[in-house]
Amino acid sequence: MPLAAIISKPQKPELAGILRELVSWLESHGYQYIFDPDSAAYLAGAVGIERPDLPKHKPDLVIVLGGDGTLLAAARAFARTVTPILSVNLGSLGFLTEIPLGDLYVTLQDWCDHRADVEVRSMMHAELRRDGKLLHQWDALNDVVVAKGTIARMADFMVEIDEQLVAKFRADGIIVATPTGSTAYNLAANGPIVMPNVNAMLVTPICPHLLTLRPIVVPGDSSVSIHIEGVPNQTYLTVDGQEAVELMLGDIVHCCRSHYSVRLLRHTPNGVFNVLRSKLKWGER
Amino acid sequence: MPLAAIISKPQKPELAGILRELVSWLESHGYQYIFDPDSAAYLAGAVGIERPDLPKHKPDLVIVLGGDGTLLAAARAFARTVTPILSVNLGSLGFLTEIPLGDLYVTLQDWCDHRADVEVRSMMHAELRRDGKLLHQWDALNDVVVAKGTIARMADFMVEIDEQLVAKFRADGIIVATPTGSTAYNLAANGPIVMPNVNAMLVTPICPHLLTLRPIVVPGDSSVSIHIEGVPNQTYLTVDGQEAVELMLGDIVHCCRSHYSVRLLRHTPNGVFNVLRSKLKWGER
Amino acid sequence: MPLAAIISKPQKPELAGILRELVSWLESHGYQYIFDPDSAAYLAGAVGIERPDLPKHKPDLVIVLGGDGTLLAAARAFARTVTPILSVNLGSLGFLTEIPLGDLYVTLQDWCDHRADVEVRSMMHAELRRDGKLLHQWDALNDVVVAKGTIARMADFMVEIDEQLVAKFRADGIIVATPTGSTAYNLAANGPIVMPNVNAMLVTPICPHLLTLRPIVVPGDSSVSIHIEGVPNQTYLTVDGQEAVELMLGDIVHCCRSHYSVRLLRHTPNGVFNVLRSKLKWGER
Amino acid sequence: MPLAAIISKPQKPELAGILRELVSWLESHGYQYIFDPDSAAYLAGAVGIERPDLPKHKPDLVIVLGGDGTLLAAARAFARTVTPILSVNLGSLGFLTEIPLGDLYVTLQDWCDHRADVEVRSMMHAELRRDGKLLHQWDALNDVVVAKGTIARMADFMVEIDEQLVAKFRADGIIVATPTGSTAYNLAANGPIVMPNVNAMLVTPICPHLLTLRPIVVPGDSSVSIHIEGVPNQTYLTVDGQEAVELMLGDIVHCCRSHYSVRLLRHTPNGVFNVLRSKLKWGER
Repeated sequence: MPLAAIISKPQKPELAGILRELVSWLESHGYQYIFDPDSAAYLAGAVGIERPDLPKHKPDLVIVLGGDGTLLAAARAFARTVTPILSVNLGSLGFLTEIPLGDLYVTLQDWCDHRADVEVRSMMHAELRRDGKLLHQWDALNDVVVAKGTIARMADFMVEIDEQLVAKFRADGIIVATPTGSTAYNLAANGPIVMPNVNAMLVTPICPHLLTLRPIVVPGDSSVSIHIEGVPNQTYLTVDGQEAVELMLGDIVHCCRSHYSVRLLRHTPNGVFNVLRSKLKWGER
Repeated sequence: MPLAAIISKPQKPELAGILRELVSWLESHGYQYIFDPDSAAYLAGAVGIERPDLPKHKPDLVIVLGGDGTLLAAARAFARTVTPILSVNLGSLGFLTEIPLGDLYVTLQDWCDHRADVEVRSMMHAELRRDGKLLHQWDALNDVVVAKGTIARMADFMVEIDEQLVAKFRADGIIVATPTGSTAYNLAANGPIVMPNVNAMLVTPICPHLLTLRPIVVPGDSSVSIHIEGVPNQTYLTVDGQEAVELMLGDIVHCCRSHYSVRLLRHTPNGVFNVLRSKLKWGER
Repeated sequence: MPLAAIISKPQKPELAGILRELVSWLESHGYQYIFDPDSAAYLAGAVGIERPDLPKHKPDLVIVLGGDGTLLAAARAFARTVTPILSVNLGSLGFLTEIPLGDLYVTLQDWCDHRADVEVRSMMHAELRRDGKLLHQWDALNDVVVAKGTIARMADFMVEIDEQLVAKFRADGIIVATPTGSTAYNLAANGPIVMPNVNAMLVTPICPHLLTLRPIVVPGDSSVSIHIEGVPNQTYLTVDGQEAVELMLGDIVHCCRSHYSVRLLRHTPNGVFNVLRSKLKWGER
Repeated sequence: MPLAAIISKPQKPELAGILRELVSWLESHGYQYIFDPDSAAYLAGAVGIERPDLPKHKPDLVIVLGGDGTLLAAARAFARTVTPILSVNLGSLGFLTEIPLGDLYVTLQDWCDHRADVEVRSMMHAELRRDGKLLHQWDALNDVVVAKGTIARMADFMVEIDEQLVAKFRADGIIVATPTGSTAYNLAANGPIVMPNVNAMLVTPICPHLLTLRPIVVPGDSSVSIHIEGVPNQTYLTVDGQEAVELMLGDIVHCCRSHYSVRLLRHTPNGVFNVLRSKLKWGER
């Protein structure tokens, strides 16, 4: 009997009805299901399983109900599996989650019938090293950001790509992004759009003091190292805009391609430019 | 007997010798002098007066030994006076402080002889209002920056100019700058260079999510109001890159022209483009 | 008996009906009227007067039916008069022409009743000097652009502001814009928005090879000189996007504030940010 | 007996001596040599062979004496061969030609000894189609640029990537660049730096009227089609900044990866970031 794991965005009252309907559809189609705590909170009597523990139940499918943020959290939780994710976008169209609520059941049916498209998106692996030791590691779908906190002063960074010095510079921060993350924070920092199927990573400085510094597109199998050389104030590392760790002088953040990737289910074949035209108001067909 | 107030950058060992020489020049030319604590620390037996208290002694001249940061602090301390400032740049050329150490004594002599050029730079007045009450106020020579802290998530702002709505938007922050401040943080945030004698203020978004938002140049007598509408994390107000206050949801930051301005002494007439060509490496004559 | 001069955009079939109605309104309100040739072409039997000759008839009001381009042409024709212009926008909203067709008659009636708002917009004066002689001169409402033609190679320019060297550089071209023109070509070249009531001019490089070069805002009474130092291919001077002259090595283009300005009639007081929010999709109120 | 083809930049008087020395080195090392007409012009009695005819003589090595422009021309002439190119940079350091004159003979000796590094750079193939027919085709090392001529008005373009609509928009032009070309015109148009070993092409709009349009990085095996939908004035296609063809309404420019590539000889292993740091003044090690 196939098992679906359901992950929801908190504080969306309309999700109570959506979840009851979804549960009823799954039951009538011979599915079992488990919930994360945020989903369980919408349903009387339901018991939630912490997100990091969901993969242990080896679900066949993850259903995400929310927006880009909920999907990013789900993607990190399931990074080390090959479980496909069906992500439904409840709010304004995101760059990542292209299935509107109205397509939920046709896409589920496609999945049952082995007809659903699966789009594989590369992830990035990031490690924080302090005093020569590995302190933390993550897998990110969008980006790893090193940026100054509080006071409007810049930090000093030294960037190496494949162990070659790129530059030492002063900036608000640096974004290391996957192609998927090129339309997230990177876009606000004046970085280019990178199509998801380009084998590359993106290194984009945030407000660099050095005006000739530019976003750099590097091969997907490069290693990017950011050395924290000056921290006038708190400087933080953030993963997919959600997890933050304070950095210290001498820390090194090392980014490379992840061994893992995310499998996104789609009802219709990928139309990355349709999403861009709509989100960025490039005009209609 | 004329009085000079001396303000120094801390932790510059070479200042001990420079200060001894300066004191001897002042004595031999009939000047009295007072020190800030950072200057006093370089000279055995000298007693410093806190920077905010220096203006009470009504000096005829302020001598600043340091870089742009030291000058910004001195400018704020003397904002409410008409005392001219002779600023000597000890490090790499700054945008603000154009007198190299080698020109210190000729410029002092020019000042004695009433031949020194005085360049007047406009300041900006900023007020922080919370729950309808005035909480803080400042006069800034460069800029007032409202920006998110810590985690790499954006804050929500609403900007009004002369009580007309400009836009509500999500961004890392907003810079409100004087023409003098246009070559400071504003430049890193992709804002234009504004010549010091343009009667204007500059409103520059930092990494706005809304890609069509642009730096806006407004008349010098405008009022610019920034309403803090969403603060996912700490958001801070910073004045001239030096003083910081944490902001809360609903806070309003109000900027307008200051009643005060800064008088900078120069040896040679102002050459703003000479400084720009040198600092921004626009090539030599 | 008051006289109205009517200037129309060519090849807009709907203008035949609009013009018949307008003529009938003017007659019934005691107005005389004259046409430019493009307007006359829509009306059987009407005789047009060349646009440059219209001011000789000393009209009390100019009515423009078209878009930003038609208004720019009308503004240049009437630059040396104080005749107000009522400009109706027939197409997609322009940055300049804020009166929609539906407001034509209320605005005309306001004008009859001396209740219409008049907004004065500064113009720029440009001179082309070759071999020390004045070859051409223009008054522009938006901008003067010096830019390379044909082949994708850059030209060499030297820019002086108030006879001080700014920089020598290689670029596709240079835009010198009024505040009004800041939302025209300047915006595409990454220049800032300058509010119409700022007393300033804008010098914006187009795709400069020198990456640290930035748009520069200069005082409204500055003089800006562009020296053509290298022309690998045809380089052209364009005024308000409409008149073009080929430039030669050694030519100097000199820009300063015009003695003339344009008076635009409005039905409602100016709402420059309303136009920006709508045109640039900054979101609704 | 190995054969070297020599290609020189015209009008560089110092080349007369350099060429005499080079010829003498080649003779003493058992090489034959042929000249392009620009090289021959420096040597009394030498006969030049037109650049497009040089490959027919099947040289074993091409020696280029000049700058980036001379190398681009040589690369196009030898695109359909596997002949390596040794390019000596005589002027200011270019992004492409990293061998200074002082390294000419060590690199030639390395080549004789089969010890020289060869760096392979991808080329792009471009086709111009008019009325359904192939009119011209080129192989480019840097970029293919479609851009408006003369008057400062924008053209209308429609861009498709892999037969999917990207956007219809108004702009000064569009650059389609290889990673090698990312540091050429693309950089001035605000595009990102793409490392030469990324398998990608770059589509960068030049001064787009649509402010949300951004440079787009697409996979190296994509096809990019530019449809010319509006041409207010002459619009030109330029290949590597050197060859130009006038475009007409309805023309389609089609770009994809070339079957050919360029082999550049190096004395020391590639140091792309060393070149960037030096050219873009990112500061020294």
